[in-house]
Amino acid sequence: MTSATPLKGLFAPTLTPFHADLSPDVERWIDHSQRLLLEGCHGLCPFGTTSEANSLGIDERIDMLEQLVASGIDAAQLMPGTGTSAIPDTVRLTSHAVKLGCGGVLLLPPFYYKGISDEGIFRALAEVIERVGDDKLRVYLYHIPPVAQIGFSLGLIERLIKAYPQTVVGLKDSSGDWNNQQAILTNFPGFGTFSGAEKYLLDNLRLGGAGSINAVANVIARPLRQLCDTWQTADEEALQTLQAEIAAVGQARGDYAAIPTLKQIVAHYRHDPAWLTVRPPFVALSQAQADILIAKLEALNFSLP
Amino acid sequence: MTSATPLKGLFAPTLTPFHADLSPDVERWIDHSQRLLLEGCHGLCPFGTTSEANSLGIDERIDMLEQLVASGIDAAQLMPGTGTSAIPDTVRLTSHAVKLGCGGVLLLPPFYYKGISDEGIFRALAEVIERVGDDKLRVYLYHIPPVAQIGFSLGLIERLIKAYPQTVVGLKDSSGDWNNQQAILTNFPGFGTFSGAEKYLLDNLRLGGAGSINAVANVIARPLRQLCDTWQTADEEALQTLQAEIAAVGQARGDYAAIPTLKQIVAHYRHDPAWLTVRPPFVALSQAQADILIAKLEALNFSLP
Repeated sequence: MTSATPLKGLFAPTLTPFHADLSPDVERWIDHSQRLLLEGCHGLCPFGTTSEANSLGIDERIDMLEQLVASGIDAAQLMPGTGTSAIPDTVRLTSHAVKLGCGGVLLLPPFYYKGISDEGIFRALAEVIERVGDDKLRVYLYHIPPVAQIGFSLGLIERLIKAYPQTVVGLKDSSGDWNNQQAILTNFPGFGTFSGAEKYLLDNLRLGGAGSINAVANVIARPLRQLCDTWQTADEEALQTLQAEIAAVGQARGDYAAIPTLKQIVAHYRHDPAWLTVRPPFVALSQAQADILIAKLEALNFSLP
Repeated sequence: MTSATPLKGLFAPTLTPFHADLSPDVERWIDHSQRLLLEGCHGLCPFGTTSEANSLGIDERIDMLEQLVASGIDAAQLMPGTGTSAIPDTVRLTSHAVKLGCGGVLLLPPFYYKGISDEGIFRALAEVIERVGDDKLRVYLYHIPPVAQIGFSLGLIERLIKAYPQTVVGLKDSSGDWNNQQAILTNFPGFGTFSGAEKYLLDNLRLGGAGSINAVANVIARPLRQLCDTWQTADEEALQTLQAEIAAVGQARGDYAAIPTLKQIVAHYRHDPAWLTVRPPFVALSQAQADILIAKLEALNFSLP
């Protein structure tokens, strides 16, 4: 199998820590990013949904990405989210990421308007690609209908690959629907399909997928990386056990919102309450919610490196 | 009844014309804005949903609003949309509008993340209001759950009014649900509640509402203004006839997307095909769709001033 994706394996949509005044805590963010790479992430997706990216201003994102690359992290390992609801802002963020040398960008469809046709989404992405106009651009489609409400159908994916075979090289499937991911993996071999759900990582790899970009990689990069490294060699029981351990951490959050929950985990296990801060419209977990969460994780013998 | 709203009557969320290269056609936009005021709009909402505002970049919106005010339109008549998914960008647009002297701003809740609590939306708006920190700020809550997916519950409206009685002075109800609008009008007398649906204008005025901000004001400002001017004096049959005429134009679009449909109407009746251009993700009507639309309008003896 050949794959057009330059990026493979485990990617974390990095959490964004904030100061008490809600400004981005860039120092803590870079430290967290470096830890995730040390813990086994092949790369990072700053400005994913989990990063509270859509609560960050356009200028903040430009500035932060520059500082991240300046910190010494290899831009080739980065797939920043650059999709906004408006073409000019998306072009600005995307061009900037390409100029910094990012290995790819994770591109949301324009997400404000609803009931949008495939034709309309195609034109929006085509316009972005044409305006960026750089043959180093590598686009990963960000399919997350539970949040964006609009997404990438099989027909639209096919059309985008055909129109821009060197540019549209992959997708993150955060539909939560294995049947959808399986259809993408089966229909587009070689296309860099990442699972947005950690629980489908093994299945993704077995069907020729590119790996996983998932929120819990912020707190369990090591077992996720172990699965990436051993899926072709370890015995089935060991793999299923590892995949089940990974899924258990994901399930521990219950119905709490993912972002405050992950920040609670980092704050607790790193003994760093600064991590509790979220930007509105998110709200930190209550103490009672946090206690239930930590009790579940303790029962799993959870720890952070 | 006293009302905190400085703005009342008929407001058009102005359509945004584009050049063939998709850049904003500012000259045509200012001309259209001036026409709408001449046709009877009490004011304008540039950068509403109908304006393709969320397809415009932050810098474009700043620049366009400056040109609109520089053209001689009284900023006190303007209620620009300034809400984005991120607090810093919303603060930037809102502060800019206040500095230009705008009579109010139409504020979307942060619309990317879904399943957001009232507490989270309250904190987001409070943060914007505190950061703008200008006692000239007048906020109109933009309740449009069919598009933004999150909105303003009665409890949240009450909390925002109590916390910022001089600032949070009104709301545009684009829920499409008369029961919701009636509940807001009944629960918050004096609050500047605008109907997002033209078909509820008469009912809105009779329950003490502020008027209507609606998409079709771009093409039928005159009868809408007539209703605003005569609802207390005209006889019931004349009012019902006028309200029915207004509703008929709204219904003529059928299930076509509102923005391309309204642009088609302006292009056709002003003999100005430049108006057909929409920004992706929207797509202009097909010729067949346009023919059906125009036939329906002809049957209503429709014309533009």
